Amino acid sequence: MSKQKPSIPKGTRDFGPAEMAKRHFILDTIKKVYQKYGYAPIETPAMENLSVLQGKYGDEGDQLLFKILNSGDFLSKTQESDLKDSKTLQPKISEKGLRYDLTVPFARYVVMNQHNLSFPFKRYQIQPVWRADRPQKGRYREFYQCDADAIGTDSMLCEAEIVLMIQEVFKLLQTKKPDSLDYAIKINNRKILSGIVEVMGAAGKETDFAVAIDKLDKIGEEKVKEELTERGFEQSAIDTLSPLFSLSGSNKDQLAFLKDFLSNSEVGQKGLAELNEVFDILDSFGANVPELELDVTLARGLSYYTGAIFEVKPQNVKMGSICGGGRYDGLTDTFGLPDVSGVGISFGVDRIYDVLDELELYPENSESSTQVLIVSFDDESWKYSLKVLQRLRNANIKAELYPEPVKLKKQMKYANDKQIPYVILVGSEEVKTGQLTFKNMQDGTQDNLNLDSILKHF
Amino acid sequence: MSKQKPSIPKGTRDFGPAEMAKRHFILDTIKKVYQKYGYAPIETPAMENLSVLQGKYGDEGDQLLFKILNSGDFLSKTQESDLKDSKTLQPKISEKGLRYDLTVPFARYVVMNQHNLSFPFKRYQIQPVWRADRPQKGRYREFYQCDADAIGTDSMLCEAEIVLMIQEVFKLLQTKKPDSLDYAIKINNRKILSGIVEVMGAAGKETDFAVAIDKLDKIGEEKVKEELTERGFEQSAIDTLSPLFSLSGSNKDQLAFLKDFLSNSEVGQKGLAELNEVFDILDSFGANVPELELDVTLARGLSYYTGAIFEVKPQNVKMGSICGGGRYDGLTDTFGLPDVSGVGISFGVDRIYDVLDELELYPENSESSTQVLIVSFDDESWKYSLKVLQRLRNANIKAELYPEPVKLKKQMKYANDKQIPYVILVGSEEVKTGQLTFKNMQDGTQDNLNLDSILKHF
Repeated sequence: MSKQKPSIPKGTRDFGPAEMAKRHFILDTIKKVYQKYGYAPIETPAMENLSVLQGKYGDEGDQLLFKILNSGDFLSKTQESDLKDSKTLQPKISEKGLRYDLTVPFARYVVMNQHNLSFPFKRYQIQPVWRADRPQKGRYREFYQCDADAIGTDSMLCEAEIVLMIQEVFKLLQTKKPDSLDYAIKINNRKILSGIVEVMGAAGKETDFAVAIDKLDKIGEEKVKEELTERGFEQSAIDTLSPLFSLSGSNKDQLAFLKDFLSNSEVGQKGLAELNEVFDILDSFGANVPELELDVTLARGLSYYTGAIFEVKPQNVKMGSICGGGRYDGLTDTFGLPDVSGVGISFGVDRIYDVLDELELYPENSESSTQVLIVSFDDESWKYSLKVLQRLRNANIKAELYPEPVKLKKQMKYANDKQIPYVILVGSEEVKTGQLTFKNMQDGTQDNLNLDSILKHF
Repeated sequence: MSKQKPSIPKGTRDFGPAEMAKRHFILDTIKKVYQKYGYAPIETPAMENLSVLQGKYGDEGDQLLFKILNSGDFLSKTQESDLKDSKTLQPKISEKGLRYDLTVPFARYVVMNQHNLSFPFKRYQIQPVWRADRPQKGRYREFYQCDADAIGTDSMLCEAEIVLMIQEVFKLLQTKKPDSLDYAIKINNRKILSGIVEVMGAAGKETDFAVAIDKLDKIGEEKVKEELTERGFEQSAIDTLSPLFSLSGSNKDQLAFLKDFLSNSEVGQKGLAELNEVFDILDSFGANVPELELDVTLARGLSYYTGAIFEVKPQNVKMGSICGGGRYDGLTDTFGLPDVSGVGISFGVDRIYDVLDELELYPENSESSTQVLIVSFDDESWKYSLKVLQRLRNANIKAELYPEPVKLKKQMKYANDKQIPYVILVGSEEVKTGQLTFKNMQDGTQDNLNLDSILKHF
């Protein structure tokens, strides 16, 4: 074997202990909240049959799927004519791909297990997904998704609970500095968008409308209007929209305006009723959610949403949406199980990671890392330290002994590098008296204590 | 999109909530113990460059790697002559593969991060790996590995701590029925095996010896001797071995015998010294490890081990080894970083899963699942239940309300299916009086309690 300088594939990352501690802080928080609301974990395989994945994410998505080469003599079943180009050859030599999101595998799971599941089925799923995207800042080829979905019920309780879960997750993530993150939970309903399009006299052009209005944040009202013109909306239709762009006031005020604005649209009224129900349920909960903002310009790209849509946007950190979701009605249709309504939410772990970094919201010490290092000066004290170590661990303290009694400086560097908050120093004097030197690495203070007192400290 | 009956790739599995709870019980236990001993988590990407993976697992391993088709027009860089067979074409159209184990990615990580890591570096890693093996009972194409390695020290403290970690993991896994699993932690040292081969006068044939002796459990002494003959060992050499096959008595007795048996082998004596040091350190810990058994016939297949080797075998459940590991000296050599000694351990999660199932060692209720379901009888009590729900969750109780006041039977079935241990029933009477019906689903008993009393119950 030749020596080689190893590398890692473009767009992928290693996570070392410090990054893992931060990621666990985020993921454990989300997990805890999902569980509190009755969502149960599932996991699906990294590989799916391409027949399951393809045709679900549009043409671009199909191209971004990582495809796995069939094992063994993969050319054996091909013919001369299959070799003419990549597009022809690919399906002949590759039957599996890496999952592109967690939603399609979940739909597959539900359909395959429909007779064993108890509905409504509420699951969460935290696993990596892979996309052969061009890597760039903040965009990776492997990244975690963190989804919760409730499927098999159309109760608006799910929508209300999604709002509460979002609020609780961000409250817990800010434990260190409450209210340091200013964010809005934006809510809308696809049926309201359909109603608006109906009022514009442009029924059937919902997708064009959604794509254009979705850019309001980035390009502003004028450009959105231009794009609507380009997409074939008439000027009179676009003029109808004007009051919506300047819509302000409380959620209640906006709902009152929309009731009037959408008075001629049945689907629009249905959307308003759904939205009102979500607000009513939140009231009945006795919940106070000032972060919740109705935003009639919120559209979200994915076309499979059919009811409520959500998005969370930080206001005091420059960052796109960090959480999103909505209700869909036809998720399992494609796998032969129609009429199953579901609603889901997904937290953007990588973006939340950066937001918490910027606001310095990570806890000082990771819950999972070593609490105390024993440093010894010679063979005799090293051996003595083993008993100390055993007693610390018996008391469920995460403890280490430096594996050899090497130079003090080297051992202390290890404690520093690993951010171990306490060090116990053991030399011949300590062995004789049983009074151990107990050093606080944060403030540099130290005490002579016997082991019982040290144990009490933790 | 045509409707299709979805399927899952051969050799892969979905894990539903019940399986996830059991798997988390195992993985969380192992994680907790790894952390207690100062091991910190890392994660590496699922995809590695094939240049990193290939040549590390032997020819068979190379064939079992899942290879990823290059994205886009993968044939564009190939020539006519590349298309002649799969073996020629594969490297031209595939540059990445899925990781085959956690050890090679770890070695790559250490080499790439050598200037930022503090040595000894103790990491654990719990992630899936993929192998294009023929699927069969208990053998999957995607499965989790669960490794801990300490790298950059040759202190036998690591070996001693591995023994203690194994003992602690299996103690915690048996919390429900202590001592129901009878198991042995078998330990040996590759240098002892080398010493034995030296004493046989067959130096250089260590691998042949290891492969043959490794089968002792399965094929017995006579067949092992036959295989040694086939592998070119002389009869006189094989006769030398006889006392080893009948070796019994305490670890101390066996060590005394080996000291004599290996008196002419320097490497053998070195192995014995290492082993003695492990036992000495365990004594100094004050640890009692009756499970630990010296087994001079333990060889373990992987050739990269150079010192201690470990294996855990259940004695009262029919199952192969459920944990294994050892010390290696040259792991990072191939990536250009020589002279780094390490020692590691890996728990076989899938096998442990089956062992715990057979011995019924899983806890009754998963820590992460819903503790109480609220069942309501009509719209009014449903709405009232929202306040109850909110108070339960404010007290950090994992709680759900059935999303609609449908038939009682349906709601109770949901609680049963999800194994929710308690149900609160809310009807018009309960709304009026505030006395809620609190039902224990395990024994079927129920009480009328106000919410404060119910909260106190948890």
